[in-house]
Amino acid sequence: MGIDPGVASTGFGVVRVGGSGKMSAVDGGVIEAAPDEPAEGRLVRIHEAIAELLSEHQPVAVALEDVYFGKNVRSAIAVGQARGVALLAAGQHGVACFGYTPQAVKMAVCGSGAAAKGQVQRMVGTLLDLPRPPQSDHASDALAVAICHTGHIRAAQVLEATEPKVRVG
Amino acid sequence: MGIDPGVASTGFGVVRVGGSGKMSAVDGGVIEAAPDEPAEGRLVRIHEAIAELLSEHQPVAVALEDVYFGKNVRSAIAVGQARGVALLAAGQHGVACFGYTPQAVKMAVCGSGAAAKGQVQRMVGTLLDLPRPPQSDHASDALAVAICHTGHIRAAQVLEATEPKVRVG
Repeated sequence: MGIDPGVASTGFGVVRVGGSGKMSAVDGGVIEAAPDEPAEGRLVRIHEAIAELLSEHQPVAVALEDVYFGKNVRSAIAVGQARGVALLAAGQHGVACFGYTPQAVKMAVCGSGAAAKGQVQRMVGTLLDLPRPPQSDHASDALAVAICHTGHIRAAQVLEATEPKVRVG
Repeated sequence: MGIDPGVASTGFGVVRVGGSGKMSAVDGGVIEAAPDEPAEGRLVRIHEAIAELLSEHQPVAVALEDVYFGKNVRSAIAVGQARGVALLAAGQHGVACFGYTPQAVKMAVCGSGAAAKGQVQRMVGTLLDLPRPPQSDHASDALAVAICHTGHIRAAQVLEATEPKVRVG
């Protein structure tokens, strides 16, 4: 299960890998929290929704992008707060979390660490055999980080390691 | 109740204001999370401990310092994750949260926004009539932000406002 935490919109995406290594999308969407609500109320909403998704899908792992802090550190910290609540929900469900840089995710999905958002959406649609690319880029980013994690899992299995070494920070 | 979230050590402090406006410390200490544990495990520990403290003390408000991001943005985001979990616990208990800048806290406790950590610890000890200043600076910082909030509450009551306008971000 991939999660793209945000202050107002948190994307999620659940990817299943078949025996043949073929990926498919099980679920995907966006958790919306009212932007005018106090932070603690928004975080309760995000936590509840993620806890429900974890109960429903019982994922073997949760993958999240590292928080990008290029432009606005204050908003990066607010995203960090939402990410903390997502990690907490996974920890409470006993699911291990894995973090990937935005570049690693784009590289895994598009073959280039500098791919544009639209490209990621199209490649997510293609890789998961969706009728059309995900409309929300939050859901797309969540599916993308889940796809990225499945690739690392496969690589780790080939290398006979038990799990990828990229634990979340 | 003041909280000073951190990756490994989270300070807490509970301050009671008597009818005469006299402050006293009800509780204070540090929640330790193993630094070698994965983030999701540490956040579960912090969330559990804060939830227990909220149940025990039933505070009317939770006050937190804004995350300082001067030196290391990556560690500020990790502190943001812990802060998110603290806000979540408060939200789940229906307790409103209030955020203050480090400068506002120092100003409230020491009369100067540039006071040193040792000065804050001594003034926290004096204002709360403790036998000696708090030994942990995490507990001291948590008590300091709680003291800062009581000052804003009193100012708001004088101004006949129902609550301070400084809601958490």
